[in-house]
Amino acid sequence: MGSADFEWKHRVEVPPSKPFLKNLANCVKETLFPDDPFRQFEGEPFSRKCVLGLQYFVPILEWAPRYTFEFFKADLIAGITIASLAVPQGISYARLANLPPIIGLYSSFVPPMIYAMLGSSRDLAVGTIAVPSLLIASMIGNEVHPAENPKLYVQLVLTATFFAGVFQASLGLLRLGFIVDFLSHATIVGFMGGAATVVCLQQLKGILGLVHFTHQTDIVDVMRSIFSQTHQWKWESGVLGCCFLLFLFITKYFSKKKGAFFWINAMAPLTSVIFGSVLVYLTHGEKHGVEVIGHLKKGLNPPSLSELSFSSPYLMTAIKTGVITGIIALAEGIAVGRSFATFKNYHIDGNKEMIAFGLMNIAGSCTSCYLTAGPFSRTAVNFNAGCKTAVSNIVMATAVMITLLFLTPLFHYTPLVVLSAIIIAAMIGLIDYESAIHLWKIDKFDFTVCLAAYIGVVFGSVEIGLVIAVALSLLRVLLFVARPRTVVLGNIPNSMAYRSTDQYPTAINVPGIFILRIDAPIYFANASYLRERISRSIDEEEDTLKRSTDVELQYVILDMSAVGTMDTSGISMLEEVKKRMDRRCLQLVLANPGSEVMKKLDRSNLIEMVGQEWIFLTVAEAVCACTFMLHSYKQKAKATKNEASDNNV
Amino acid sequence: MGSADFEWKHRVEVPPSKPFLKNLANCVKETLFPDDPFRQFEGEPFSRKCVLGLQYFVPILEWAPRYTFEFFKADLIAGITIASLAVPQGISYARLANLPPIIGLYSSFVPPMIYAMLGSSRDLAVGTIAVPSLLIASMIGNEVHPAENPKLYVQLVLTATFFAGVFQASLGLLRLGFIVDFLSHATIVGFMGGAATVVCLQQLKGILGLVHFTHQTDIVDVMRSIFSQTHQWKWESGVLGCCFLLFLFITKYFSKKKGAFFWINAMAPLTSVIFGSVLVYLTHGEKHGVEVIGHLKKGLNPPSLSELSFSSPYLMTAIKTGVITGIIALAEGIAVGRSFATFKNYHIDGNKEMIAFGLMNIAGSCTSCYLTAGPFSRTAVNFNAGCKTAVSNIVMATAVMITLLFLTPLFHYTPLVVLSAIIIAAMIGLIDYESAIHLWKIDKFDFTVCLAAYIGVVFGSVEIGLVIAVALSLLRVLLFVARPRTVVLGNIPNSMAYRSTDQYPTAINVPGIFILRIDAPIYFANASYLRERISRSIDEEEDTLKRSTDVELQYVILDMSAVGTMDTSGISMLEEVKKRMDRRCLQLVLANPGSEVMKKLDRSNLIEMVGQEWIFLTVAEAVCACTFMLHSYKQKAKATKNEASDNNV
Repeated sequence: MGSADFEWKHRVEVPPSKPFLKNLANCVKETLFPDDPFRQFEGEPFSRKCVLGLQYFVPILEWAPRYTFEFFKADLIAGITIASLAVPQGISYARLANLPPIIGLYSSFVPPMIYAMLGSSRDLAVGTIAVPSLLIASMIGNEVHPAENPKLYVQLVLTATFFAGVFQASLGLLRLGFIVDFLSHATIVGFMGGAATVVCLQQLKGILGLVHFTHQTDIVDVMRSIFSQTHQWKWESGVLGCCFLLFLFITKYFSKKKGAFFWINAMAPLTSVIFGSVLVYLTHGEKHGVEVIGHLKKGLNPPSLSELSFSSPYLMTAIKTGVITGIIALAEGIAVGRSFATFKNYHIDGNKEMIAFGLMNIAGSCTSCYLTAGPFSRTAVNFNAGCKTAVSNIVMATAVMITLLFLTPLFHYTPLVVLSAIIIAAMIGLIDYESAIHLWKIDKFDFTVCLAAYIGVVFGSVEIGLVIAVALSLLRVLLFVARPRTVVLGNIPNSMAYRSTDQYPTAINVPGIFILRIDAPIYFANASYLRERISRSIDEEEDTLKRSTDVELQYVILDMSAVGTMDTSGISMLEEVKKRMDRRCLQLVLANPGSEVMKKLDRSNLIEMVGQEWIFLTVAEAVCACTFMLHSYKQKAKATKNEASDNNV
Repeated sequence: MGSADFEWKHRVEVPPSKPFLKNLANCVKETLFPDDPFRQFEGEPFSRKCVLGLQYFVPILEWAPRYTFEFFKADLIAGITIASLAVPQGISYARLANLPPIIGLYSSFVPPMIYAMLGSSRDLAVGTIAVPSLLIASMIGNEVHPAENPKLYVQLVLTATFFAGVFQASLGLLRLGFIVDFLSHATIVGFMGGAATVVCLQQLKGILGLVHFTHQTDIVDVMRSIFSQTHQWKWESGVLGCCFLLFLFITKYFSKKKGAFFWINAMAPLTSVIFGSVLVYLTHGEKHGVEVIGHLKKGLNPPSLSELSFSSPYLMTAIKTGVITGIIALAEGIAVGRSFATFKNYHIDGNKEMIAFGLMNIAGSCTSCYLTAGPFSRTAVNFNAGCKTAVSNIVMATAVMITLLFLTPLFHYTPLVVLSAIIIAAMIGLIDYESAIHLWKIDKFDFTVCLAAYIGVVFGSVEIGLVIAVALSLLRVLLFVARPRTVVLGNIPNSMAYRSTDQYPTAINVPGIFILRIDAPIYFANASYLRERISRSIDEEEDTLKRSTDVELQYVILDMSAVGTMDTSGISMLEEVKKRMDRRCLQLVLANPGSEVMKKLDRSNLIEMVGQEWIFLTVAEAVCACTFMLHSYKQKAKATKNEASDNNV
């Protein structure tokens, strides 16, 4: 087989080589600064650069000058609406985390103020969130019992919050925001659904007025705990709980049906709390088996810097809890912020958000707040109430401040069962079965991940569910890399295109030529698989040919269009494939290698080994050349044969 | 903008849907059985299937019937040659693992026998290996001091060997062989080089005749340990060591220069041992500061099943050591086996090898052997000596058996310094600086991984080096997935091909149309990055257009050729990109989506959203359609303008 250098052939070029450092800088920029935050600084004078830089880190400086009275009116209404949700939610979630209720209120005061200055979302309403609250209770509660040693427990929670903040801020500063992306949508749907189920089950304690309860969160233990003490169930508490639950569901249904009445849903929790408290106060329900919140201290957040215990023997637990809850809070907060930003068509910078979340939690941990982020429910209400900027957070914080200063005694008679009902009503919405069905329809593996996360959380624990889901997601990435697809191509009739014979059943094989597309970058994790896979594909093709026709396989074209990059293992693999083909008297042809691939082929002298004349710009050109060679080869063979027979004659 | 349905347009097809279970089975087969081991069973009668199955698991049954006397002659010579290497190497490596020397000899007897029956390599010579020996010493030595509690130490080593075997065999049975592929070539080069350096440094203890020595393996500690006790150096030992080292290096150099004299190199260790022993015996060197092996028990391997301690408090250490050393032994063994198989053009089945290695180590742990695999040095000698089948392993085992039965007393006077010299001579060859240079030339990141592994091992510890290297390799995979390339395409003059403008500087942009190729599958780990990246690319293109021409951007073509697959996150990302483009009055066009992508687009109704008429088979067709639309749009605009001016007139 000779050369196939046609005149019309387009040369596949080795890209012009760039200096190593420039390449490296480019690579780092693409990895850590994919959003190109420096773009706006280009070509500006120094003073303007400073202003822009300050505005970059403190977004309020950017939009405050443009703030109008119209905006304020909208933000005021939205702020008051979310405040009415924030107070009962704050108390409820603090109970979920086994913390004193007042800490839930504190947490709705300082962090929103800080977020309003640093955050880049206009819709996010800051507050405590359900799943991390539950996680805190289970992870720290495992080490220190909240009832037996409440002071140490609170200290550990604050320390964990501090570390969560540090972790979040450093992720943002180091521009490692993409870590959050590894929690896939499917993982989050399953995990949230599982956590919501678990939280609802936990609330049965409050609804039934039970005193003793399991510390486990899995469904088996919880059910056993509930049904082993049926004689302890308090009917007063149960009836009250069911009534409020019904009320909350009805308001929810109603405001879902008519968008304009969103405020009914937003006000419902506060209404329930007020109504429940008045009811208990009037009927002295606290003496008839209905537990109440009891005394709440008046006054603003006390400083808690001295409460952070860095020398405690439980420091590692605090760090672990901080990191895990921190990343979950980030994932939820950023996902929520992004969703609403997409509605209003503005952009949210993940790394900037992380810094804002981190600083807000660090500040929070020093002012008696525990972990906060952007809960979906509160943000949705904020959005529906027509908020314009983060000022609605400031309004909410002010309302909570007034509550802390003057109104806490009013919560003395608030029955715990109302809080349980509020939590259940909020959680049910997080069980997003519609998303799960959607996942099943589109991608079975995503559904598996989702289901695994759900089952892990409900039957194991929150951590187990999370670990299973992340491990499965990562396994998928690794499997994709380790087992890339190879696709057999055929010619689409009446065109120059060569496409997968699976996708286009009409695609036609070219006799004597085998065309294979490799659908992934080739490197260490898949090099040896691909080597074997290519060999096997050729074996199979030869078998088929032998069975059906008398055409012999002579050319193997590897379509490299989809091979984005290659490492040294990939190079050795290609070298070996070439050797094996030589041994089998097959000609290896490469079609459309990309720039990275050509660069590596060039540096490793593989271009000479394959032969520059066997590298083509398109599959069509490669096929053309091979067919031409095949014909001339056949004619030569015929001529030789004829000559031989002539001689014989 | 209207429809672009041309008559000549080729329809992009949604592949015919397959039943879910068939898909799943296909997927599992491709993942776990990429080598298709059942292929040979197809269409055979049952009895033949049984025979083939047995031959599959016990390869000796397959090749034994074809074994000839010619083969045996070759195997006999090869076997005796490797036995002469096996005896001193066995003793040396056992010392490296802080084990009694006799265990090294035991380990060259039983495991080779078992491998000869189960292994699929014809060239692999079984024996103990250096790096895992060192790892065993450092990992188990950390828990139990080998000199203070020798019995427990040996028990733990045997237990670790047992777990290594179980781990290896189960990897093979579960067909998880691809895990080994994640130890990239670069990792192995760096790691081996580092380990060889560390081992050589450790031998200075033997060469200088030191009694006290650090337990750390990092270069700083070792150097401090050596130079803090210069007064303890024994010159007799040092001189002897240097002489033997010189002898070994000269023979190595000589046999490297003349391939036919490979046996000089192979015999050199045994010659050194014999010569050293005779020298010490004659000069009574053992009384002059030259340490000797001392008494070696006569007799074959004693059974050691009762020595395996599964209830020991150090069980976790044993398991950990077993798993880590097991996987390293596998990686080395399979890599060595594959290299030589490639030379002789036969195929090695990774999963089958794993089962063979695993069973060999399980059997070994019950017969007083520690971890064995296929050391490179011994296998290379075996290959050079002309071995034909695994019978050479049986010959070697027989020779070792004779040594164990009759010749052990001869090793009484063997000086330790000779063993140190043998280890150093073998290890120097593992520092593969040429490979490192090759890595630097071709792929800088691979070189970084290699260097990191080397530095980690030399300055930290063997485990640290391994963890760093594997973490970096995985980071690369994850980064590749999280940060895929997007490439701007242009038309190659005089062709229908659209290629990267980076690679082909002559490629020409088409006015008003922006063509972007996505170079990776789209899913959760990169969906949000790609969303932002596509937006930014369009921004940049619009900026450039504004600055240079008055053409407005109207069409964005996404070339999906390289998008192998998509998950639900990818679908939502595409949905959002479509929405954003609609808002900016840009038309999204898809070119050449593959079968997986079309399937998902179809299921999620995204085809309707994008519009079937905006999905093209090739970029060229898409560009053609867009250009056509642009022209008709311009003409319409012109016509409207003319009409308007006509009306004005």
